Amino acid sequence: MSPIGATLAANGNAAETGPNGDASKLRITLTQSRKAVPPPEEQIFGKIYTDHMVVVSFDPAIGWLDPEIRPYGPLSIDPSASIFQYGTSVFEGMKAYLGPDGKARLFRPEHNMARLKKSADRLALPSFDEYEVLKLITKLVALESRWIPETKGHSLYIRPTIIGTRPSIGVRASDSAILYIILSPTGPYFRISKPISLLAVNEPVRAWPGGTGGHKVATNYSPTFKPQQHAEKLGYDQILWMVGEKVTEVGAMNFFVVIKRDDNDLDIITPPLDGTILPGITRKSVLALAAAHPSHTVLSGLPDVVRLHAHERELTMSDLRTWSAEGRLLEAFATGTAAIVAGIGRIGFEGSDIRLPENEGGLGPVAKALFERITDIQTGRTEWENWGVLCE
Amino acid sequence: MSPIGATLAANGNAAETGPNGDASKLRITLTQSRKAVPPPEEQIFGKIYTDHMVVVSFDPAIGWLDPEIRPYGPLSIDPSASIFQYGTSVFEGMKAYLGPDGKARLFRPEHNMARLKKSADRLALPSFDEYEVLKLITKLVALESRWIPETKGHSLYIRPTIIGTRPSIGVRASDSAILYIILSPTGPYFRISKPISLLAVNEPVRAWPGGTGGHKVATNYSPTFKPQQHAEKLGYDQILWMVGEKVTEVGAMNFFVVIKRDDNDLDIITPPLDGTILPGITRKSVLALAAAHPSHTVLSGLPDVVRLHAHERELTMSDLRTWSAEGRLLEAFATGTAAIVAGIGRIGFEGSDIRLPENEGGLGPVAKALFERITDIQTGRTEWENWGVLCE
Repeated sequence: MSPIGATLAANGNAAETGPNGDASKLRITLTQSRKAVPPPEEQIFGKIYTDHMVVVSFDPAIGWLDPEIRPYGPLSIDPSASIFQYGTSVFEGMKAYLGPDGKARLFRPEHNMARLKKSADRLALPSFDEYEVLKLITKLVALESRWIPETKGHSLYIRPTIIGTRPSIGVRASDSAILYIILSPTGPYFRISKPISLLAVNEPVRAWPGGTGGHKVATNYSPTFKPQQHAEKLGYDQILWMVGEKVTEVGAMNFFVVIKRDDNDLDIITPPLDGTILPGITRKSVLALAAAHPSHTVLSGLPDVVRLHAHERELTMSDLRTWSAEGRLLEAFATGTAAIVAGIGRIGFEGSDIRLPENEGGLGPVAKALFERITDIQTGRTEWENWGVLCE
Repeated sequence: MSPIGATLAANGNAAETGPNGDASKLRITLTQSRKAVPPPEEQIFGKIYTDHMVVVSFDPAIGWLDPEIRPYGPLSIDPSASIFQYGTSVFEGMKAYLGPDGKARLFRPEHNMARLKKSADRLALPSFDEYEVLKLITKLVALESRWIPETKGHSLYIRPTIIGTRPSIGVRASDSAILYIILSPTGPYFRISKPISLLAVNEPVRAWPGGTGGHKVATNYSPTFKPQQHAEKLGYDQILWMVGEKVTEVGAMNFFVVIKRDDNDLDIITPPLDGTILPGITRKSVLALAAAHPSHTVLSGLPDVVRLHAHERELTMSDLRTWSAEGRLLEAFATGTAAIVAGIGRIGFEGSDIRLPENEGGLGPVAKALFERITDIQTGRTEWENWGVLCE
């Protein structure tokens, strides 16, 4: 486990926005009435928030003001604000896990900070010092440590958000902003131990080349609500978004398939980052772990004679149908911070379903091996290339 | 001038959401400190708001609650709300004008209501009764009538907005919402009497087939902030968005060109509504007025021997270059509620500019004729097909 400072310093990140927003100037106002932590079965994703939140305001004349931790509660925003009128918001999804030593850990947080910075730039929101924001996250998680679930598969979900607050309906960049961080104790994203079903959709289109699909911006999400309702009505859990013939991602998750090349060689394929796909940190981690097996590490449950070949390449529904007919489509799974690795049982397209082989517990052998290794690293049971970062 | 009730009744709009949200149940809380109305030269678009606003909340268990008018001020929203996290917002732009009789008028408001309803549906926001919302607008405008500017070219801009307020970071439709209406006295959108310049941009892409470009949703706008900054750095006022070879619209305005067919025939062309273009109400009005000249009405300043042929057809930069080289590209202009009709002086693309013929005051004869007729209708100086609607 590497402490956060070392991780970021190793990445060459230094303060860029001057002394303001400095985490050392944090003011803390504690709540007068602490909430009871709900039992694990009530820790549904995104339903419950902890007692406190971080708030940092950006003033165009001054820059980032001193950060504060204050009781969780509503934000008071002018009705003409950029966020209300033009959807000016970027965010991240991260998790804190409790290790066997009782200490909280983050998972590759420097990648979340770098992505948040890119997202802010895409929507012309003010830049920020990644190191200071990460320190604010760790301070908030430390203050709220009683909220980190001990139940296996549970964690404290972290949602850093930056909203544009310029109080003008003129269509231009927001020169005021609020960065805030909220925490939500959460169980598994899908509270079922069976695989999920996807509906492949090429109309409407979620993201497109030259659009914002490669950034974690709020504007990618609300346009998916109505199609998601439609998919649910047809009996599918989520949408597999397409651009023309190509499959891209699941909206809140990246998409992978496992294709049998021969008895000892499996191809792990996900579509390339062409601007229509979010560069997921779990995606990146799955690609790295798959490439490491078996030469650098043996993933549990996978024989060491099996070689995993990780690829980023275009995938079409026609590819999936062909592989399925040939009996070579062994697994499909989706990855993301919230779900980690979710098994996929069927994919509907143009009126018929591709069915994946069934597996006990909903995950195929490759997905299960990746899920277990990643959660082992996240919870500090295994060390791997400093991916687990002590939250202190 | 037709009263609002008759206009909507003629369109077959009736209450759809039951008795809730009923404008007759409006509660009014007046401000304790009325602001001074600033002089015309300080009425910059979107800078100043009036004393009051309409607020109506939607509760998933109840529906739309009774509407209220209250002092203009911040909205208090949970940090996990759908609007902050996923950009769940739709809006409209309308204007109230003072007529020669001292009465306020709206311009084709039933089209704004219908579009707002479609936009809400696209983002899975609750539906609403268009007639009740329009009544709320007229009541607010009536209450704030001292804010309607008398200066020529000025008006009271109206911004109805619906935001999703579901307090959960789970990615799904917002089952709570707030509809609110704010007003801003405004002078001309472009405070210059010379034509604007456009930079044609095909990367990034604003909207795409199957996307949300055909709806007035917040998420279309914040991704344009950074490209807009870039265009301004290069010396252009606005972007002319392209999809591949095709030009689409200006982001906050639709795009038109006037092409000389022969001495007496002019083609007025705008790209078709293919899902990448907002169905503008000024756009629709320009097409209708152009088609009416000279057979149904003679637009001022245009000889009645000149026939205008209005078309919706695909336009490419290559078309524009060809017509410009042939001397047939007489005018280009942009239309929208804020700007009404704005003349375009040059269009940059791939390092060189297409220059349009210069005209005194910035508008060519066709653009000027359309601008004057539309503002005559808006301000009640001319009657035309019930487009002007008395605000009472």
